Formats: sequence, structure tokens, C-alpha cells
Amino acid sequence: MENFHLSMPTNIYFGHGMVKKLTKHLNQYKRILLVAGGGSIKKNGVYEQVRAVLDSMQIKVFELWGVQPNPDIESVREGIKICKDNDIEFILAVGGGSVIDASKAIAAGFYFKDDPWLLFYDETKVKKALPIGVILTLPATGSETNGNAVVSNREKQEKLSIHSDLLKPVFAILDPYYTFSLPQSQTAAGSADILAHLFEQYFSKNLDNYLIDRMTEAVMKTVIKYAPIAIKEPENLAAREQLMYASTLALNGLLSSGKVTDWATHALEHEVSATHDVTHGVGLAILFPRWMKYCYSDDKAIKYVEYAVNVWEIKKEDFNFIDFNQVFEKLSKEERKSIAFEAIEKTAQFFKSLGLPDSFRSLNIDPSYSKIWASNLIKRDKSAGNFKVLYEEDIKQIYESCFE
Amino acid sequence: MENFHLSMPTNIYFGHGMVKKLTKHLNQYKRILLVAGGGSIKKNGVYEQVRAVLDSMQIKVFELWGVQPNPDIESVREGIKICKDNDIEFILAVGGGSVIDASKAIAAGFYFKDDPWLLFYDETKVKKALPIGVILTLPATGSETNGNAVVSNREKQEKLSIHSDLLKPVFAILDPYYTFSLPQSQTAAGSADILAHLFEQYFSKNLDNYLIDRMTEAVMKTVIKYAPIAIKEPENLAAREQLMYASTLALNGLLSSGKVTDWATHALEHEVSATHDVTHGVGLAILFPRWMKYCYSDDKAIKYVEYAVNVWEIKKEDFNFIDFNQVFEKLSKEERKSIAFEAIEKTAQFFKSLGLPDSFRSLNIDPSYSKIWASNLIKRDKSAGNFKVLYEEDIKQIYESCFE
Repeated sequence: MENFHLSMPTNIYFGHGMVKKLTKHLNQYKRILLVAGGGSIKKNGVYEQVRAVLDSMQIKVFELWGVQPNPDIESVREGIKICKDNDIEFILAVGGGSVIDASKAIAAGFYFKDDPWLLFYDETKVKKALPIGVILTLPATGSETNGNAVVSNREKQEKLSIHSDLLKPVFAILDPYYTFSLPQSQTAAGSADILAHLFEQYFSKNLDNYLIDRMTEAVMKTVIKYAPIAIKEPENLAAREQLMYASTLALNGLLSSGKVTDWATHALEHEVSATHDVTHGVGLAILFPRWMKYCYSDDKAIKYVEYAVNVWEIKKEDFNFIDFNQVFEKLSKEERKSIAFEAIEKTAQFFKSLGLPDSFRSLNIDPSYSKIWASNLIKRDKSAGNFKVLYEEDIKQIYESCFE
Repeated sequence: MENFHLSMPTNIYFGHGMVKKLTKHLNQYKRILLVAGGGSIKKNGVYEQVRAVLDSMQIKVFELWGVQPNPDIESVREGIKICKDNDIEFILAVGGGSVIDASKAIAAGFYFKDDPWLLFYDETKVKKALPIGVILTLPATGSETNGNAVVSNREKQEKLSIHSDLLKPVFAILDPYYTFSLPQSQTAAGSADILAHLFEQYFSKNLDNYLIDRMTEAVMKTVIKYAPIAIKEPENLAAREQLMYASTLALNGLLSSGKVTDWATHALEHEVSATHDVTHGVGLAILFPRWMKYCYSDDKAIKYVEYAVNVWEIKKEDFNFIDFNQVFEKLSKEERKSIAFEAIEKTAQFFKSLGLPDSFRSLNIDPSYSKIWASNLIKRDKSAGNFKVLYEEDIKQIYESCFE
């Protein structure tokens, strides 16, 4: 295992009616900014519930509406202005990852003298931030308990991320009932996003982390088991509960413990949604099976076989958890590859079964973008990923395979 | 799932050389109390490393030595006196669960006007506590990142626990190298303790918590796989890493998410070690397989079968993770019970394979204690546990079976 520091300070309140816990954390504030998206929280009653609690506390609430999917730096600038003009003390994000990430950028930008987009070129400039709380309505990004924020700059065709411990929310309220009204497409894309986070951490060079690998597989199986149920029965409480908690645990730091993680596929996806209006989870679902195939090699086979056996239960009767590696050693190269590719195929089929598009072609993107995205990515970073380090030509080939 | 609040504020620093992180958290303090046990940390060099860092920071260090296994309230009183006499600002626990728990009781007792044992009759009296940090040397209790403290009062023949969020350590330094010198008996008892914590949370009435149940099984398998290796090869780094992190994750709150947990077996063990000098993990290893057998009933069979299939891989080829319950439904009562009891037998055999005693008789305890312990327990609590609620006669029968 690699040495690591793990900090998970966010208070999680999980379950029906947990919105009332706002009183516990907000009673010290007089003026807060509520950040929201396009208005779905007005339709499903979440906004009304939140305002009822805030109004009963006699908090003065300012509001920023209209944060888009792949939130734009323009919303962040707008939010910072409201905060500065009104001496805001706390930011309450009510929504999914985009709303939360915009809120984090506002929180950091509030104390930054210059334009907030500059923070995305150098996250070490985040020295202080307003405190943030989250009421989650879309399980996907895990942003509700971590310090990550991903923001787009459409003017510059850039999509960048920052991380700071200062951006970890003080609390996250996870009420699965708030997700009953999610459309199938968002449940599907969110589930793909959760799985993608797990893959980024799981496919790692560190093969000596049995505990975390098995815990990660547990979260994967949860998503694979319950996402189809939530899509078929949007008000199935058990499925909504499991997906909501899975999204949080998938990216709160725990499953990166002691590991060098990858994140190449996220970097590749960010280039795609910087130039096209592609839902993050959709882009990831298209990219990930191709990334898995491209990165396969004999020396990496063990990780794929673990994934195949422990998640998809392929040939599980041949293995046992005590002597897994010994059984693996006895397989031929061809047998290993066959098991690995069966698992990759199952992964792709799973995304398809959720109703997600399975190529960039089906999104009407021009194939010439493969070269443009690869070039854009390499302009900023010299390479992508760690499990297999990808350079411009590798990246272009993965993009190209996404048009097949 | 049950509604829940999860708070995991402790900063975890994991890996070789992490003792240097003391500087990050202690630079604001001038006077600290170092709490330690019988002196093993002097033999294995841990004390020297810790003092080197503290001395380089010019912190004035007071020391409390001699905290026993099953720490006594007498040590706590002594620690509080040192803290009061010397204006201590921070407590650094260097050791295993006993040292940590004593430190927590000192931290709470420092601000309590009356005798600290009274806190153990009413934990709501913990209103404030000194901050605590931990350098862990024995993976077992999980006390390094939670708010629990278990302390004995030998004079009164009582062993009681308290919980408060105020007692959660600010940081926990987990250096697996510090556990290389642990004797086999402590590695074995510590591993039994970790498994017992997992059982207490896993065997729950809440059958709708797929994610947490599978994560819990992952930690169980880690202990079952790596404890025998650590016992055979005390300096096997991978095994020491896995056990150390397993002990922390087994009881940091995560695996209780959304569950009514049991804790009957811990209550039963506390009575045993209140009257006899029995290592906590040893008592638990004797009690748990008997508790499992006693609590088995047809309506609880599903939980046992999950445990059997997912942990011990009994009949795993008949099951799959998507349709587990449907496969279970097709089994006869006899088949279910047979699978369950095979898993219980494997559990007992596993503890025995670690070199742990397998009955109270082998510890030379008089069988008449079954009645005394059951009576003592029921005097304080009306019953024990939730998975199956146990009353005096049930408890006596479980104790009696531990002499067989």
C-alpha cells in the first residue's frame, strides 16, 4: 500500500426527512446563498421543504438559480457577486454534482482576489473558502462529501477540476425520496458515473490492497444490482437508497486509500464535454469499456481477472478468496484474456441495458474530434492515467474506438 | 435502511514513517500528556520515535504509564490528576485499545467535576473533552477513530462503555511497522476482536442494506485471509497493513450505516472480563460461535446464508449476486440450516486455528459463573441485543454453552 492521509469530515445525514437537520448546522448563520439548477427542485417539492426549514429559522436566503449540467464559470462569477454584495456566510447547494461543484467554486472564489477561473489553473491558490452544505438530489458525482469541483469554461472550451480539503462540505443531507422523480436518463447516467469513479480507483498498479479492492467491488455490485431496478421502478425505495449511498461512498476518499488511482478516463471525458454538450456519465459509459480494452496487457491481467471473477462472477467456481492468486497463476495467457474481455463486454452491455448511448457516433459527434480532443488534453497534461500511462497517440486511438 | 447520522472526523495517516505527521497537529500545543501501557513501545522503538518528534517541537511532555489491558478507572483518575496539575492541553495515546480508551476517559474526566466513573453510568454527562490523538500499536478495537471508550472498575467488578462524538480522536497514525513485534497471541485476539465488531453490525434485523453488508463481508474476508499470515510471518508487511486498516474500518461508524446493530456478545463478554482477567478478543472468540448458534431461527436464516455464501464461499456456485434471495427462497429449511451451521463451524475453527482458546473451561473459569454473569448483566440492562433480544435465561444458556 502507498502511504496516505484520509480525511472525511462531512457529516452525513441519510434518510427520509433529514432536511430538518439543517437547523443543527445553520443556526449560527444569518445570511446564506442557496444554489440550485434548472427548477426540478420546485417541481418535486424539495425546494419548498428546504425553504420551510430556513424560513422557520429566520435566515435571510439569497438564491442563485440556473446552474447548468457541466456548470459554467459564468454561474460561479454570478454567485460570487451575490455573496460579496450580501455578506453571505454559508452556501447551501440543493441539487446534483453541478450545483455542488459550482457552489464549491463560489465558496473558494469568494476569498480570491482575481477571476475564479484562475483557481482552476492552480488549485493551490485556494487558501480559504466559505462553508458549504449539501442537499443531494442526484446520486452520481460523490461531490457531496469530497473536496473536488469540476467547472467548465465554455468561452475557452475548457473543463477543469480542482481539489481542496477546504471545499469539503460541512454536511450532506441524503434523502433517497428526493430522487424518486429523477428521469431514467439521469438515473442511468448517474449510475455510470458512480461505476466510473470506482473503476478509476480500482484499476490501479497497487495490487496489495485486498481490503479496499473488495470494498470497491461491493459498491460496484450494488450499482449493477440496483440501477436497473431504480430505472424500472423509480419509486423503489431500496434501490434509491442503495444508489444514493453508493454514489457517496464511491468518491469520499475511502476507496483511494493506499492507492495510486488512474483518472485517465475522466480526463478524456472532460475534453469531450468541453466541446460538446454531453452528459458526464454518458461520456464515461462510452469511454470506459474502450479504455479497459486498450489498457489490457498480460502484466495487468490479474486486475481484470479480479474484476471479472469478483464483480461479474465469471468462473467464480474456479477461484477462492484465500488462494485467488495461485489459481490465477495456473491460467494460460489466453484464458486470462478471455475472462478479462468477457468482463469488459459485460460492462459495455450493462451500460447499454441502462439505455445509455454506446458510441460518440450515436451522439452525432464528428469523428475528427478524436484528434482535437487528444491534442487539447496533451496541451495541458503531458499524459493521462497511471494504470497505463497514455500519450497523445494512445488517447486518440481510444477516442477513435468510441466512434466504432 | 434506518435513518442515520455518520461522522468520521478523525484524520487517518497510514503508512511507514507517518509519526512525523505529529508536527502538523501538535504545533499549537505546549503541554501534552502521553499515555502508554506496560512498556512494549520502549522495546520496539516506537516510544523513541514519538519522543524524538515531540522533543524536536519543544513540547513539554508528561507521561502516564502502566495502563493495563481492560483499563481500570484507577489509571483514568491518575491521568486526570496529571492533566489538572499540569494544565495539559492535549492527550496523545500511544498503544492499543486500552491505552486509547483510558485516554478518552481522561479527556472527558478532565472537565467533569465529579469522579470519572460516574460518566460510565451516564454518558450524557460528557459535555466537553480534551482533544486526543492516537498512535496505534495494536489493531483490534477500532477505538482510534471512534468515540467509544470501555473501562473497568475492578473494585466494583464492573466493565462499562461510553460513547461521545467529543471523544473521537483528532488524528490516528497507523504505521503497520509498529505491529511487527506483536506476539502471536495479541495478533490472534486482535483479529478476533475485529471480526466480532463486524459480526455485531452484520447480524442485524435490517436486511435491506446490500451495500454495507457486502462491504462488511469484504472486511471479514480480509481478516480471515491475512490474520493467519500475520501470525505465521509477523513481519509480513501486506498482512500487517491489511489487518491494521481492517481494524479501523471495522468500527469507525461506516459499517453501522442504516442499521440497528446488535452488541449482545460484547455485553456478554464485558461481564466475563469484569470478573476474570480474560483478553477481550479471546472472550469474544469463545462467545460468538455460540451466540450465532443460539440465535439461529428459520426467520433469521437469510442472514446466516449470506454470511456462509459470501464470506466462507459455501455453495457459492449455486448463488449469484443479482438473484441471491430468489435462490435462497428455493432452499428447504434443512438446507438453509445446514449451510448456516457449516459457516458457524468454520468461524469456530478459524478462531481455533489462530491458537485461541475455545471454551471458558480451558481458561479455568468455574461454570457457576454463567449464572452470576447473566444475573449481573440483567441487573444493569433488561436485555441484550437486537438481532434476537436475549433475556436472562437466554444469556445464561449461551454462557453455559461456552463451557462445553
